[in-house]
Amino acid sequence: MGEYFIGIDLGGTSIKLGITDATGHLLHKDEMPTRPAEGAKAGMERMAAGARQLAESAGIAWGDVKGLGLGAPGFLDLAEGKILRLTNIPWENVPIRDGLQDLLGIPVVIDNDANVAALGEAWSGAGAGLTDMVLITLGTGVGGGVIAGGRLIHGAGGMAGEVGHIPVEPGGVPCGCGQQGCLETISSATGLVRLATAAVGAGRATPLKSDVEAGTITTRDIVNAAREGDPVALEVIDTAVDALARVMAILTLVNNPAAFVIGGGVSGAGETLFTPLRRAFGRHALPDVARGVQIIPAQLGNDAGMIGAAGLTAKGTMMG
Amino acid sequence: MGEYFIGIDLGGTSIKLGITDATGHLLHKDEMPTRPAEGAKAGMERMAAGARQLAESAGIAWGDVKGLGLGAPGFLDLAEGKILRLTNIPWENVPIRDGLQDLLGIPVVIDNDANVAALGEAWSGAGAGLTDMVLITLGTGVGGGVIAGGRLIHGAGGMAGEVGHIPVEPGGVPCGCGQQGCLETISSATGLVRLATAAVGAGRATPLKSDVEAGTITTRDIVNAAREGDPVALEVIDTAVDALARVMAILTLVNNPAAFVIGGGVSGAGETLFTPLRRAFGRHALPDVARGVQIIPAQLGNDAGMIGAAGLTAKGTMMG
Repeated sequence: MGEYFIGIDLGGTSIKLGITDATGHLLHKDEMPTRPAEGAKAGMERMAAGARQLAESAGIAWGDVKGLGLGAPGFLDLAEGKILRLTNIPWENVPIRDGLQDLLGIPVVIDNDANVAALGEAWSGAGAGLTDMVLITLGTGVGGGVIAGGRLIHGAGGMAGEVGHIPVEPGGVPCGCGQQGCLETISSATGLVRLATAAVGAGRATPLKSDVEAGTITTRDIVNAAREGDPVALEVIDTAVDALARVMAILTLVNNPAAFVIGGGVSGAGETLFTPLRRAFGRHALPDVARGVQIIPAQLGNDAGMIGAAGLTAKGTMMG
Repeated sequence: MGEYFIGIDLGGTSIKLGITDATGHLLHKDEMPTRPAEGAKAGMERMAAGARQLAESAGIAWGDVKGLGLGAPGFLDLAEGKILRLTNIPWENVPIRDGLQDLLGIPVVIDNDANVAALGEAWSGAGAGLTDMVLITLGTGVGGGVIAGGRLIHGAGGMAGEVGHIPVEPGGVPCGCGQQGCLETISSATGLVRLATAAVGAGRATPLKSDVEAGTITTRDIVNAAREGDPVALEVIDTAVDALARVMAILTLVNNPAAFVIGGGVSGAGETLFTPLRRAFGRHALPDVARGVQIIPAQLGNDAGMIGAAGLTAKGTMMG
């Protein structure tokens, strides 16, 4: 008995499936390889079979599963429930909502991966109970999702929350989007590595030199060096948090969230990131608006996407 | 018969009252002096009397008036329906929602003046029918209001839409908010006059020189000179629209609106403003997100506030 919801997080490598109760509590999860080359039809059939299997494994009758949500990376037509074009998966123009509905006989809703992660954190993660929240994900790139007035904001073209492409450095390095100096070029894992590499290239003395020269340097190396007091690593992190804080100060003026929830691999740096980030935000944000704004780590990790996807079809969630 | 709604636009000089039908069509309006010094209690009593009088003048039975909304300039506690502190009116800590409800016996909702103007334009003005829209008001300052997912966005502290204080010029001139180089210091009427004055001060030849030296220069003078091809006036406008377009490009990445609706006195410049503004937006906005975004003049003028205030209590409007 009860009402349950399934969320699917479709990624280039794996498909993650989770089933939640009506409060966003994850009861059971599963994972399968994406196998992009098999095509969208085979993919949909495996997702549908995986969803039924998941409910069974969780001991939940299929009749108690009230909906399925799917988060996908790329360009989607939300109103039509279609995949237009994905990142790292060569499926194009796939009416996946209707396809899954036909296979499963339950309501299906799709949304982009950053949005569903924000919905997950707002439903039962770090932002639980907040009606106004912004998730910023610091990974290979910088993604985001906006919850405002208790709802997930999509925007007219489904592109709301693309905060990684807010320019922060006029004439900065080129970004994959075609602009220069986007937040993503500085405050992502890629950005941190680039800044450390540039410092070594400029002849700065740092224990990071050997990692840079070996081409193995990662965010973790930079964070570890910062924890040990390396001035170069500390500068790299300061540069990254300063750019991020300037964008957060702007978002505070636009949507006035109660909290910024920071997720993604870089957020694993913990207080090495959060302490200077809160300080930089205090420097850049308008005090009257910024007062009381929380800056907190995401809580759901890799489960955020599937939980938020499940939330897309749950009544009483933030679904817009 | 039917359902009608009253909106009050409380300003430092005058109180504007309007009554609308359920589609945001303004049926009748009235205006009275604010008389701030008489105090909040007298003000509330006059507003209540004015609301009853307005319905009577419009030939609408009081029983058909289903709600009253109030827009006010300053700091409000929206949840408690309280005025905390107003701009140009010395009323503090006034439980005005409950006060008006007691006097009138109908539901009352309050919101800030920029938000209600956005709601008005989204309900029955330039943004009618759009679920995602940003109003930017270019007046003495720069204000804004955000409609997202079909609802007015307030944010956690009721401060959403404060787009005038987004910094656009690092180390720029001081703003009233305590920061430097805010959008408001450049793209407001005040900003345009400041830029023209600076150009004259720098020895630039322009027909604006006499107005600047007489201290009588206004936005209208600058717009007129631009229309006649004065390079200095054209540069001033280009500077103002470039800063505005950069902020609009950012807002496009955050909330992805279908339209920017530009209001306030400066928007009276018409195509002298809108043509370079659209061009600058094309230069700064990320093409994938900006495609199809409309940049259009506000339609309701000074009535936007009272119409939007009326909309605060109308069912089926954008009210969040």
